[in-house]
Amino acid sequence: MKIDHPYLMFLGDAPDQLAAKTAIGIADWRPQWCKGQLRLTGCQADLGLPDMTIAEAKAAGVRTLVLGVANRGGIIGPAWMETLLAALDAGMDIANGLHTRLTTIPELVERAREKGCSMFDVRHFDGTLPVGNGEKRPGKRALAVGTDCSVGKMYTTLAIEAELKKRGQKATFRATGQTGIFIAGEGISVDAVISDFISGAVETIAPANEPDHWDVIEGQGSLSHASFAGVSMGLLHGAQADALVICHEPTRTHMRGLPGYKVPDLKTTMELNLTHARLTNPDCKVVGIAINTKALDEAAATRLLADVAAEFGLPCVDPVRTGVAPIVDKLLEI
Amino acid sequence: MKIDHPYLMFLGDAPDQLAAKTAIGIADWRPQWCKGQLRLTGCQADLGLPDMTIAEAKAAGVRTLVLGVANRGGIIGPAWMETLLAALDAGMDIANGLHTRLTTIPELVERAREKGCSMFDVRHFDGTLPVGNGEKRPGKRALAVGTDCSVGKMYTTLAIEAELKKRGQKATFRATGQTGIFIAGEGISVDAVISDFISGAVETIAPANEPDHWDVIEGQGSLSHASFAGVSMGLLHGAQADALVICHEPTRTHMRGLPGYKVPDLKTTMELNLTHARLTNPDCKVVGIAINTKALDEAAATRLLADVAAEFGLPCVDPVRTGVAPIVDKLLEI
Repeated sequence: MKIDHPYLMFLGDAPDQLAAKTAIGIADWRPQWCKGQLRLTGCQADLGLPDMTIAEAKAAGVRTLVLGVANRGGIIGPAWMETLLAALDAGMDIANGLHTRLTTIPELVERAREKGCSMFDVRHFDGTLPVGNGEKRPGKRALAVGTDCSVGKMYTTLAIEAELKKRGQKATFRATGQTGIFIAGEGISVDAVISDFISGAVETIAPANEPDHWDVIEGQGSLSHASFAGVSMGLLHGAQADALVICHEPTRTHMRGLPGYKVPDLKTTMELNLTHARLTNPDCKVVGIAINTKALDEAAATRLLADVAAEFGLPCVDPVRTGVAPIVDKLLEI
Repeated sequence: MKIDHPYLMFLGDAPDQLAAKTAIGIADWRPQWCKGQLRLTGCQADLGLPDMTIAEAKAAGVRTLVLGVANRGGIIGPAWMETLLAALDAGMDIANGLHTRLTTIPELVERAREKGCSMFDVRHFDGTLPVGNGEKRPGKRALAVGTDCSVGKMYTTLAIEAELKKRGQKATFRATGQTGIFIAGEGISVDAVISDFISGAVETIAPANEPDHWDVIEGQGSLSHASFAGVSMGLLHGAQADALVICHEPTRTHMRGLPGYKVPDLKTTMELNLTHARLTNPDCKVVGIAINTKALDEAAATRLLADVAAEFGLPCVDPVRTGVAPIVDKLLEI
C-alpha cells in the first residue's frame, strides 16, 4: 500500500472539526502534501487549506483524494459518491480512512478499473503477510508504547522522526494505524491484520535497514488494555525495538472504552513492556517518557514533567509543549 | 459456526498417518460422532473406522463430511472434487480443516447453494465480532496456557472437560483451533480473527453462563512465542480465567518454528500468564501443570511429575499417562 501525494483532503459534510480529526493530523504533519480541501454543503470542518473542486485539484497536480473524515453510520451517500466518481474520472486515486470499504462499492470498483486508478482502504488489510520469524535484523528501531490507547503515541513518534531528521540522522516513521498511514504514505493498520500475523506485519513494515538507520514505529493500544493488548503484544515482538518511549495521559480516569479498568502506572507499564520487548531484543531500553499535558496549565505541566524525569532518571517531555529533543539525545546514545 | 454430526471422515490420499492428525484427534475424542472413513486410492492413513462410500455414509445418517487431513500444496485436485460434490449431492454439509477455503471454489459454492448444504472453513473466520469489553460475566472458566505451541493444550482441556463431566459437573470444552472446533462442533479459530477482535472472539465463544458451569477453554500459542504471543495475550484477556493450567513439553530444544528462541521455564510462564490474566480476573489462579511426557520412559516421567509437583506445590500430571483428576480436584476448590 503506497499512497501517492499530493493530496486533496475530502471533508464531506463533517458535522464538526472533531469529525475531521484524521484530516487534521495529516495536514499538521504533511502540510506540503496537502494542496487543498473539498467540502460539501453543510461541512462544519475546516483545515485552513484552499477550497478546491476536483478539476482545480487535478490542475494543481493532486494525485490522491483522501477521505480523512468520520461519517455517520458508515454509509457513503449520493453526495459523496458524486465527488468520489469525479475524482476517479479525473484519474485520481482514492485513499479512505473510513471503516466502510470503498472496494465493496461496485460502482466505484468498476470506475476505478476503467480509469486505472487505485483505491486504498487503509483501515483494512487484504494482502498476504508472513508469520513473524523473530530473526534479528539490521537497523535500529524505536517504538512508542502506552499506558492506554490514544495517549499520543503517533504524535510522539512523528516528532522523534522529525527531530532525528533535523539532526541529519537517517530515520523513517513507520505507520501502524490509519492516520499514520496517510502521513507516511504507506504502512499497515496492524489491528486489521489476521491475528496470526501481527508480529509478521511489523517485521514487514520495519524491515532490515542500514545499521545507523532508525525506524520510528507508531505504537497501538496498550499491554494493559483488555480489548487490544494482543495487538500491542504482537507489535512489540515484531518491532524488535532497541528503544521504547512510554506515552501517557495523566488525567485519564479509566482505560479508554473500559470504565471498569484503571490506567496502569508508568512503572508497571515500563516493566511489562520491557519484559516482553526483551524476548525479541534483549538489549531493549526505555529512552524516555512522553506525557500529553494538554489538560494541565503550564506550571502543573512543568512540575509533572520534572517530577517524572526525576523519579525514573529518564527524559520526560510533552512532545507538543517541550519537543522531544531530550529523548532523541538519549536515543542516539544507543 | 455449528457443525452437525455424525461425521464421515475424509482422509483423501493422505501420504501417511501424520497427515491425518486432525482426523485422528476427532476420532479419539468423539468416536460416537465418527461413523466411518472415506479413503481414496493411495491413502496411507487409517482411523480404524469402517470404510464407507458417500451413499453408505448417507444411509448411516452422516450429516457432515469432515476434511481432517493435510494435503499437498493446499490444492483440491479432481479426485477430491468428485467426492466433495457427491457429498453435497447427498445433502451433506462439508467441514474443512485445510487452509484452502472451500468457499472460494465456485463449483462447490454453487452446488452447496443448489442443495441447501453448508460449507465450513474452520481455519478461517468471516463473521463479525465485538471488540472485547472486559466486563465480568457469570460462570467459571479454565484456560490452558503453555510454554510453547503444540504442548498439549487441547488434549489437556478436553481431558479436564471429560473428568468434570464424569463427576457430574456442568462443563463445556470451548474450541479455539481447527481440531478443537471439529471436536466441539463449534468454536472460532482465534488465530484467524482480525487482531482487534481476539479478546472479543473469546468473550463470544465462552459467554455468560450458570455460576457453577465450567467453560474449559482451549489455549493457543504462548506469551513467550515471538510469532504468536499476540493471539495468546488476547485469548488470556478474553477468557477471564478463574483457573489456568500450564502445559509443557520437557524435551523441546527451542520454541516451535523459532530455532533461535529458548523455551521459557515453568515459573516464568506461570508468572507471565498470571500477571496478564489478572487484568481481567484478579482472582485467577494456577490450578495445575500438565506435562506431555511421551518422550520419557515411565520412571523418568513419574520422577519429573513428582519433582514439578513438589517444586510448585501444585498438581502435576500427564493427561495421557496419569489423567487430570488431581487438577480437577484443585479446580473444584475454586
